[in-house]
Amino acid sequence: MITVSVATSRKEQLIDITRDVQNAVSKRGFANGICHVHTAHTTAAVTVNENADPDVVHDIILSLDSIVKELPGFRHGEGNSTAHVKSSLVGNSVTVPVDNGQLVLGTWQGIYFCEFDGPRSRKVWVTCTPSENG
Amino acid sequence: MITVSVATSRKEQLIDITRDVQNAVSKRGFANGICHVHTAHTTAAVTVNENADPDVVHDIILSLDSIVKELPGFRHGEGNSTAHVKSSLVGNSVTVPVDNGQLVLGTWQGIYFCEFDGPRSRKVWVTCTPSENG
Amino acid sequence: MITVSVATSRKEQLIDITRDVQNAVSKRGFANGICHVHTAHTTAAVTVNENADPDVVHDIILSLDSIVKELPGFRHGEGNSTAHVKSSLVGNSVTVPVDNGQLVLGTWQGIYFCEFDGPRSRKVWVTCTPSENG
Repeated sequence: MITVSVATSRKEQLIDITRDVQNAVSKRGFANGICHVHTAHTTAAVTVNENADPDVVHDIILSLDSIVKELPGFRHGEGNSTAHVKSSLVGNSVTVPVDNGQLVLGTWQGIYFCEFDGPRSRKVWVTCTPSENG
Repeated sequence: MITVSVATSRKEQLIDITRDVQNAVSKRGFANGICHVHTAHTTAAVTVNENADPDVVHDIILSLDSIVKELPGFRHGEGNSTAHVKSSLVGNSVTVPVDNGQLVLGTWQGIYFCEFDGPRSRKVWVTCTPSENG
Repeated sequence: MITVSVATSRKEQLIDITRDVQNAVSKRGFANGICHVHTAHTTAAVTVNENADPDVVHDIILSLDSIVKELPGFRHGEGNSTAHVKSSLVGNSVTVPVDNGQLVLGTWQGIYFCEFDGPRSRKVWVTCTPSENG
Protein backbone atom coordinates (compact mmCIF):
# COMPACT_ATOMS: atom_id res chain seq x y z
CA MET A 1 0.00 0.00 0.00
CA ILE A 2 1.39 3.37 -1.03
CA THR A 3 0.20 6.68 0.41
CA VAL A 4 -0.20 9.62 -1.97
CA SER A 5 -0.55 13.13 -0.52
CA VAL A 6 -2.91 15.66 -2.09
CA ALA A 7 -2.95 19.34 -1.13
CA THR A 8 -6.20 21.07 -2.04
CA SER A 9 -6.40 24.85 -2.36
CA ARG A 10 -10.12 25.54 -2.60
CA LYS A 11 -13.39 24.69 -0.84
CA GLU A 12 -14.38 22.41 -3.70
CA GLN A 13 -11.94 21.11 -6.26
CA LEU A 14 -11.23 18.13 -8.50
CA ILE A 15 -7.52 17.36 -8.87
CA ASP A 16 -6.14 14.97 -11.50
CA ILE A 17 -4.03 12.38 -9.62
CA THR A 18 -3.61 9.92 -12.51
CA ARG A 19 0.15 10.47 -12.69
CA ASP A 20 0.58 9.98 -8.92
CA VAL A 21 -1.36 6.72 -9.08
CA GLN A 22 0.66 5.52 -12.10
CA ASN A 23 3.87 6.38 -10.22
CA ALA A 24 2.71 4.25 -7.27
CA VAL A 25 1.96 1.33 -9.59
CA SER A 26 5.35 1.69 -11.29
CA LYS A 27 7.21 2.03 -7.97
CA ARG A 28 5.83 -1.36 -6.92
CA GLY A 29 6.81 -2.91 -10.25
CA PHE A 30 3.22 -4.08 -10.46
CA ALA A 31 2.32 -5.78 -13.76
CA ASN A 32 -1.26 -7.05 -14.21
CA GLY A 33 -4.45 -6.86 -12.16
CA ILE A 34 -6.37 -4.04 -10.55
CA CYS A 35 -5.37 -0.86 -8.76
CA HIS A 36 -7.51 0.43 -5.88
CA VAL A 37 -7.38 4.12 -4.94
CA HIS A 38 -9.05 4.97 -1.61
CA THR A 39 -9.42 8.33 0.08
CA ALA A 40 -8.98 8.39 3.86
CA HIS A 41 -11.56 11.16 4.29
CA THR A 42 -15.35 11.43 4.69
CA THR A 43 -15.77 14.86 3.05
CA ALA A 44 -13.81 13.95 -0.09
CA ALA A 45 -14.11 11.36 -2.85
CA VAL A 46 -12.32 9.75 -5.79
CA THR A 47 -13.77 9.47 -9.28
CA VAL A 48 -12.86 8.85 -12.92
CA ASN A 49 -13.95 11.47 -15.44
CA GLU A 50 -12.80 13.55 -18.41
CA ASN A 51 -9.28 14.98 -18.27
CA ALA A 52 -9.27 16.78 -21.64
CA ASP A 53 -11.58 19.79 -21.16
CA PRO A 54 -11.28 21.42 -17.70
CA ASP A 55 -14.84 22.74 -18.14
CA VAL A 56 -16.13 19.23 -17.41
CA VAL A 57 -14.69 19.38 -13.88
CA HIS A 58 -16.20 22.87 -13.45
CA ASP A 59 -19.61 21.59 -14.49
CA ILE A 60 -19.42 18.54 -12.19
CA ILE A 61 -18.76 20.76 -9.16
CA LEU A 62 -21.58 23.12 -10.17
CA SER A 63 -24.01 20.26 -10.74
CA LEU A 64 -23.22 18.56 -7.42
CA ASP A 65 -23.81 21.87 -5.63
CA SER A 66 -27.22 22.18 -7.23
CA ILE A 67 -28.14 18.57 -6.38
CA VAL A 68 -26.93 18.35 -2.76
CA LYS A 69 -28.44 21.32 -0.97
CA GLU A 70 -28.22 22.62 2.57
CA LEU A 71 -31.37 21.55 4.42
CA PRO A 72 -33.01 23.11 7.50
CA GLY A 73 -33.22 19.67 9.10
CA PHE A 74 -29.46 19.02 9.08
CA ARG A 75 -28.11 18.30 12.58
CA HIS A 76 -24.35 17.78 12.12
CA GLY A 77 -22.69 20.62 14.00
CA GLU A 78 -19.72 21.12 11.70
CA GLY A 79 -21.91 22.49 8.91
CA ASN A 80 -20.36 20.29 6.23
CA SER A 81 -23.12 17.72 5.80
CA THR A 82 -23.36 18.36 2.06
CA ALA A 83 -19.69 17.36 1.74
CA HIS A 84 -20.41 14.08 3.57
CA VAL A 85 -23.33 13.38 1.22
CA LYS A 86 -21.25 14.14 -1.88
CA SER A 87 -18.56 11.78 -0.55
CA SER A 88 -21.01 8.88 -0.42
CA LEU A 89 -22.63 9.74 -3.77
CA VAL A 90 -19.36 10.01 -5.71
CA GLY A 91 -17.66 7.31 -3.64
CA ASN A 92 -14.60 6.84 -1.47
CA SER A 93 -12.61 4.82 -3.94
CA VAL A 94 -12.14 3.81 -7.54
CA THR A 95 -10.63 0.66 -8.99
CA VAL A 96 -8.86 0.64 -12.35
CA PRO A 97 -7.40 -2.25 -14.41
CA VAL A 98 -3.62 -2.50 -14.81
CA ASP A 99 -2.08 -4.13 -17.89
CA ASN A 100 1.67 -4.56 -18.40
CA GLY A 101 2.38 -2.08 -15.63
CA GLN A 102 0.11 0.64 -17.02
CA LEU A 103 -3.23 1.88 -15.70
CA VAL A 104 -5.88 1.05 -18.29
CA LEU A 105 -8.05 4.11 -18.83
CA GLY A 106 -10.23 5.28 -21.71
CA THR A 107 -8.98 7.99 -24.05
CA TRP A 108 -10.58 10.78 -22.02
CA GLN A 109 -10.40 9.24 -18.54
CA GLY A 110 -8.36 10.57 -15.64
CA ILE A 111 -8.47 9.71 -11.91
CA TYR A 112 -9.62 12.67 -9.82
CA PHE A 113 -9.36 13.44 -6.14
CA CYS A 114 -12.57 15.32 -5.21
CA GLU A 115 -12.33 17.90 -2.41
CA PHE A 116 -15.70 18.91 -1.00
CA ASP A 117 -14.64 20.66 2.23
CA GLY A 118 -11.23 22.22 1.67
CA PRO A 119 -8.70 23.49 1.49
CA ARG A 120 -6.95 20.70 3.39
CA SER A 121 -4.04 18.28 3.33
CA ARG A 122 -5.49 15.03 2.10
CA LYS A 123 -4.25 11.55 1.27
CA VAL A 124 -5.19 8.51 -0.79
CA TRP A 125 -4.01 4.92 -0.45
CA VAL A 126 -3.05 2.93 -3.55
CA THR A 127 -3.20 -0.90 -3.38
CA CYS A 128 -2.69 -3.32 -6.27
CA THR A 129 -3.85 -6.94 -6.44
CA PRO A 130 -2.70 -9.23 -9.26
CA SER A 131 -4.78 -11.20 -11.73
CA GLU A 132 -4.01 -14.91 -12.09
CA ASN A 133 -1.67 -14.37 -14.97
CA GLY A 134 -0.10 -11.46 -13.01
CA MET B 1 -16.25 -15.40 0.72
CA ILE B 2 -17.91 -14.81 4.07
CA THR B 3 -21.59 -13.89 4.45
CA VAL B 4 -22.48 -11.28 7.08
CA SER B 5 -26.13 -10.90 8.14
CA VAL B 6 -27.61 -7.48 8.82
CA ALA B 7 -31.04 -6.99 10.42
CA THR B 8 -32.50 -3.56 9.74
CA SER B 9 -35.26 -2.13 11.93
CA ARG B 10 -36.44 0.92 10.02
CA LYS B 11 -37.55 1.97 6.54
CA GLU B 12 -34.26 3.83 6.01
CA GLN B 13 -31.20 3.27 8.15
CA LEU B 14 -27.40 3.27 8.01
CA ILE B 15 -25.81 0.57 10.18
CA ASP B 16 -22.10 0.52 11.02
CA ILE B 17 -20.79 -2.92 9.98
CA THR B 18 -17.06 -2.15 10.28
CA ARG B 19 -16.59 -4.62 13.15
CA ASP B 20 -18.39 -7.41 11.26
CA VAL B 21 -16.21 -6.84 8.20
CA GLN B 22 -13.04 -6.80 10.33
CA ASN B 23 -14.16 -10.05 11.97
CA ALA B 24 -14.55 -11.64 8.55
CA VAL B 25 -11.05 -10.50 7.55
CA SER B 26 -9.59 -11.83 10.80
CA LYS B 27 -11.45 -15.13 10.55
CA ARG B 28 -9.79 -15.75 7.18
CA GLY B 29 -6.37 -14.87 8.60
CA PHE B 30 -6.11 -12.43 5.71
CA ALA B 31 -3.00 -10.21 5.80
CA ASN B 32 -2.51 -7.68 2.96
CA GLY B 33 -4.56 -6.59 -0.01
CA ILE B 34 -8.11 -5.37 -0.47
CA CYS B 35 -11.42 -6.31 1.11
CA HIS B 36 -14.60 -6.16 -0.98
CA VAL B 37 -17.99 -5.77 0.73
CA HIS B 38 -21.00 -6.37 -1.53
CA THR B 39 -24.69 -6.22 -0.69
CA ALA B 40 -26.92 -8.85 -2.25
CA HIS B 41 -29.86 -6.44 -2.57
CA THR B 42 -31.11 -3.86 -5.08
CA THR B 43 -32.83 -1.54 -2.58
CA ALA B 44 -29.82 -1.27 -0.26
CA ALA B 45 -26.23 -0.09 -0.57
CA VAL B 46 -22.83 -0.03 1.16
CA THR B 47 -20.82 3.12 1.80
CA VAL B 48 -17.95 4.53 3.85
CA ASN B 49 -18.67 7.65 5.89
CA GLU B 50 -18.22 9.25 9.32
CA ASN B 51 -18.69 7.01 12.35
CA ALA B 52 -18.01 9.63 15.06
CA ASP B 53 -21.09 11.88 15.04
CA PRO B 54 -24.38 9.98 14.43
CA ASP B 55 -25.88 13.22 13.11
CA VAL B 56 -23.90 12.69 9.89
CA VAL B 57 -25.85 9.52 9.16
CA HIS B 58 -29.10 11.34 9.95
CA ASP B 59 -28.21 14.11 7.51
CA ILE B 60 -27.22 11.66 4.76
CA ILE B 61 -30.62 9.93 4.94
CA LEU B 62 -32.42 13.30 4.96
CA SER B 63 -30.40 14.59 2.03
CA LEU B 64 -30.92 11.46 -0.10
CA ASP B 65 -34.68 11.73 0.52
CA SER B 66 -34.65 15.31 -0.73
CA ILE B 67 -32.59 14.39 -3.82
CA VAL B 68 -34.37 11.21 -4.95
CA LYS B 69 -38.06 12.06 -5.12
CA GLU B 70 -41.15 10.07 -6.01
CA LEU B 71 -42.10 10.92 -9.59
CA PRO B 72 -45.51 10.65 -11.30
CA GLY B 73 -43.87 8.80 -14.19
CA PHE B 74 -42.57 5.88 -12.11
CA ARG B 75 -43.85 2.53 -13.40
CA HIS B 76 -42.38 -0.07 -11.03
CA GLY B 77 -45.35 -1.63 -9.25
CA GLU B 78 -43.70 -2.22 -5.89
CA GLY B 79 -43.54 1.50 -5.14
CA ASN B 80 -39.91 1.39 -4.05
CA SER B 81 -38.25 2.94 -7.11
CA THR B 82 -36.54 5.62 -5.03
CA ALA B 83 -34.79 2.85 -3.05
CA HIS B 84 -33.53 1.31 -6.31
CA VAL B 85 -32.17 4.69 -7.44
CA LYS B 86 -30.45 5.31 -4.09
CA SER B 87 -28.88 1.85 -4.36
CA SER B 88 -27.25 2.72 -7.69
CA LEU B 89 -26.23 6.23 -6.58
CA VAL B 90 -24.57 5.12 -3.33
CA GLY B 91 -23.39 1.83 -4.79
CA ASN B 92 -23.69 -1.88 -4.14
CA SER B 93 -20.24 -2.39 -2.78
CA VAL B 94 -17.17 -0.80 -1.23
CA THR B 95 -13.57 -1.90 -1.33
CA VAL B 96 -11.14 -1.09 1.49
CA PRO B 97 -7.37 -1.71 1.81
CA VAL B 98 -6.13 -4.28 4.35
CA ASP B 99 -2.70 -3.98 5.95
CA ASN B 100 -1.26 -6.52 8.39
CA GLY B 101 -4.70 -8.03 8.90
CA GLN B 102 -6.44 -4.74 9.67
CA LEU B 103 -8.90 -2.75 7.54
CA VAL B 104 -7.23 0.55 6.62
CA LEU B 105 -9.72 3.34 7.23
CA GLY B 106 -9.33 7.06 7.90
CA THR B 107 -9.75 8.39 11.43
CA TRP B 108 -13.46 9.08 10.98
CA GLN B 109 -14.34 6.36 8.48
CA GLY B 110 -16.68 3.44 9.11
CA ILE B 111 -18.29 0.97 6.70
CA TYR B 112 -22.06 1.36 6.60
CA PHE B 113 -24.84 -0.89 5.36
CA CYS B 114 -27.52 1.39 3.90
CA GLU B 115 -31.13 0.23 4.13
CA PHE B 116 -33.48 2.11 1.80
CA ASP B 117 -36.56 -0.17 1.88
CA GLY B 118 -36.66 -1.86 5.26
CA PRO B 119 -37.02 -3.24 7.74
CA ARG B 120 -35.67 -6.49 6.32
CA SER B 121 -33.16 -9.28 6.89
CA ARG B 122 -30.21 -8.40 4.69
CA LYS B 123 -26.78 -9.79 3.93
CA VAL B 124 -23.40 -8.70 2.61
CA TRP B 125 -20.60 -10.79 1.13
CA VAL B 126 -17.00 -10.14 2.17
CA THR B 127 -14.20 -11.24 -0.21
CA CYS B 128 -10.47 -10.52 0.21
CA THR B 129 -7.84 -10.59 -2.54
CA PRO B 130 -4.14 -10.36 -1.68
CA SER B 131 -1.56 -7.88 -2.93
CA GLU B 132 1.66 -9.29 -4.38
CA ASN B 133 3.46 -9.10 -1.09
CA GLY B 134 0.36 -10.57 0.63
CA MET C 1 -8.27 -8.45 -19.00
CA ILE C 2 -11.10 -9.16 -21.42
CA THR C 3 -12.83 -6.45 -23.49
CA VAL C 4 -16.60 -6.67 -23.89
CA SER C 5 -18.30 -4.55 -26.58
CA VAL C 6 -21.66 -2.91 -25.93
CA ALA C 7 -23.73 -1.28 -28.69
CA THR C 8 -26.26 1.19 -27.34
CA SER C 9 -29.27 2.25 -29.41
CA ARG C 10 -30.72 5.18 -27.47
CA LYS C 11 -29.65 8.45 -25.85
CA GLU C 12 -30.06 6.93 -22.39
CA GLN C 13 -30.26 3.21 -21.79
CA LEU C 14 -29.39 0.53 -19.24
CA ILE C 15 -28.29 -2.76 -20.83
CA ASP C 16 -27.97 -6.00 -18.86
CA ILE C 17 -24.41 -7.31 -19.47
CA THR C 18 -24.42 -9.99 -16.75
CA ARG C 19 -24.14 -12.82 -19.27
CA ASP C 20 -21.25 -11.12 -21.10
CA VAL C 21 -19.37 -10.66 -17.83
CA GLN C 22 -20.03 -14.28 -16.80
CA ASN C 23 -18.76 -15.42 -20.20
CA ALA C 24 -15.53 -13.47 -19.66
CA VAL C 25 -15.07 -15.07 -16.23
CA SER C 26 -15.73 -18.54 -17.66
CA LYS C 27 -13.43 -17.98 -20.65
CA ARG C 28 -10.57 -17.28 -18.23
CA GLY C 29 -11.39 -20.40 -16.21
CA PHE C 30 -11.44 -18.09 -13.20
CA ALA C 31 -12.54 -19.78 -9.96
CA ASN C 32 -12.66 -17.64 -6.78
CA GLY C 33 -12.14 -13.97 -6.00
CA ILE C 34 -13.56 -10.76 -7.39
CA CYS C 35 -14.49 -9.59 -10.87
CA HIS C 36 -14.00 -5.94 -11.80
CA VAL C 37 -16.05 -4.42 -14.65
CA HIS C 38 -14.86 -0.99 -15.83
CA THR C 39 -16.27 1.23 -18.55
CA ALA C 40 -13.77 3.06 -20.74
CA HIS C 41 -16.05 6.10 -21.12
CA THR C 42 -16.79 9.32 -19.21
CA THR C 43 -20.43 9.68 -20.25
CA ALA C 44 -21.41 6.14 -19.29
CA ALA C 45 -21.37 4.03 -16.11
CA VAL C 46 -21.74 0.51 -14.74
CA THR C 47 -24.13 -0.45 -11.94
CA VAL C 48 -25.84 -3.41 -10.29
CA ASN C 49 -29.63 -3.26 -9.99
CA GLU C 50 -32.84 -5.26 -10.51
CA ASN C 51 -33.06 -7.45 -13.60
CA ALA C 52 -36.55 -8.88 -13.03
CA ASP C 53 -38.91 -5.95 -13.74
CA PRO C 54 -37.79 -3.74 -16.66
CA ASP C 55 -39.80 -0.89 -15.11
CA VAL C 56 -37.02 -0.48 -12.54
CA VAL C 57 -34.55 0.48 -15.25
CA HIS C 58 -37.12 2.89 -16.73
CA ASP C 59 -37.58 4.54 -13.34
CA ILE C 60 -33.81 4.83 -12.72
CA ILE C 61 -33.32 6.71 -16.02
CA LEU C 62 -36.31 8.96 -15.27
CA SER C 63 -35.10 9.69 -11.74
CA LEU C 64 -31.52 10.50 -12.82
CA ASP C 65 -32.91 12.93 -15.42
CA SER C 66 -34.89 14.73 -12.72
CA ILE C 67 -31.87 14.86 -10.38
CA VAL C 68 -29.12 15.95 -12.78
CA LYS C 69 -30.46 18.98 -14.60
CA GLU C 70 -29.04 21.23 -17.31
CA LEU C 71 -27.72 24.38 -15.66
CA PRO C 72 -27.21 27.86 -17.19
CA GLY C 73 -23.69 27.91 -15.73
CA PHE C 74 -22.43 24.84 -17.58
CA ARG C 75 -19.33 25.60 -19.69
CA HIS C 76 -18.47 22.30 -21.40
CA GLY C 77 -18.96 22.93 -25.12
CA GLU C 78 -20.20 19.46 -26.07
CA GLY C 79 -23.47 19.96 -24.22
CA ASN C 80 -23.30 16.60 -22.45
CA SER C 81 -22.29 17.73 -18.97
CA THR C 82 -25.24 15.97 -17.34
CA ALA C 83 -23.94 12.68 -18.78
CA HIS C 84 -20.52 13.32 -17.21
CA VAL C 85 -22.15 14.01 -13.84
CA LYS C 86 -24.28 10.86 -14.02
CA SER C 87 -21.14 8.89 -14.87
CA SER C 88 -19.45 10.01 -11.63
CA LEU C 89 -22.60 9.59 -9.52
CA VAL C 90 -23.37 6.05 -10.69
CA GLY C 91 -19.70 5.14 -11.07
CA ASN C 92 -17.31 3.90 -13.73
CA SER C 93 -17.01 0.37 -12.43
CA VAL C 94 -18.52 -2.35 -10.29
CA THR C 95 -16.85 -5.25 -8.52
CA VAL C 96 -18.66 -8.53 -7.89
CA PRO C 97 -17.60 -11.66 -5.96
CA VAL C 98 -16.88 -14.88 -7.88
CA ASP C 99 -17.35 -18.29 -6.26
CA ASN C 100 -16.57 -21.58 -8.01
CA GLY C 101 -16.44 -19.83 -11.35
CA GLN C 102 -19.82 -18.09 -10.98
CA LEU C 103 -20.56 -14.41 -10.39
CA VAL C 104 -22.19 -14.09 -6.99
CA LEU C 105 -25.24 -11.85 -7.30
CA GLY C 106 -28.42 -11.49 -5.26
CA THR C 107 -31.67 -13.01 -6.55
CA TRP C 108 -32.70 -9.81 -8.32
CA GLN C 109 -29.28 -8.40 -9.20
CA GLY C 110 -27.91 -7.93 -12.72
CA ILE C 111 -24.89 -5.96 -13.98
CA TYR C 112 -25.94 -3.04 -16.16
CA PHE C 113 -24.05 -0.89 -18.63
CA CYS C 114 -25.48 2.64 -18.35
CA GLU C 115 -25.50 4.78 -21.47
CA PHE C 116 -26.03 8.48 -20.78
CA ASP C 117 -24.96 10.01 -24.12
CA GLY C 118 -25.74 7.51 -26.86
CA PRO C 119 -26.25 5.85 -29.09
CA ARG C 120 -22.61 4.78 -29.38
CA SER C 121 -20.29 1.81 -29.60
CA ARG C 122 -19.00 1.28 -26.07
CA LYS C 123 -16.75 -1.15 -24.26
CA VAL C 124 -16.09 -2.48 -20.78
CA TRP C 125 -12.99 -4.20 -19.42
CA VAL C 126 -13.36 -7.29 -17.21
CA THR C 127 -10.49 -8.16 -14.85
CA CYS C 128 -10.51 -10.92 -12.20
CA THR C 129 -8.23 -11.17 -9.16
CA PRO C 130 -8.15 -14.33 -7.05
CA SER C 131 -8.76 -14.71 -3.33
CA GLU C 132 -6.12 -16.59 -1.33
CA ASN C 133 -7.90 -19.88 -1.69
CA GLY C 134 -8.47 -19.12 -5.40
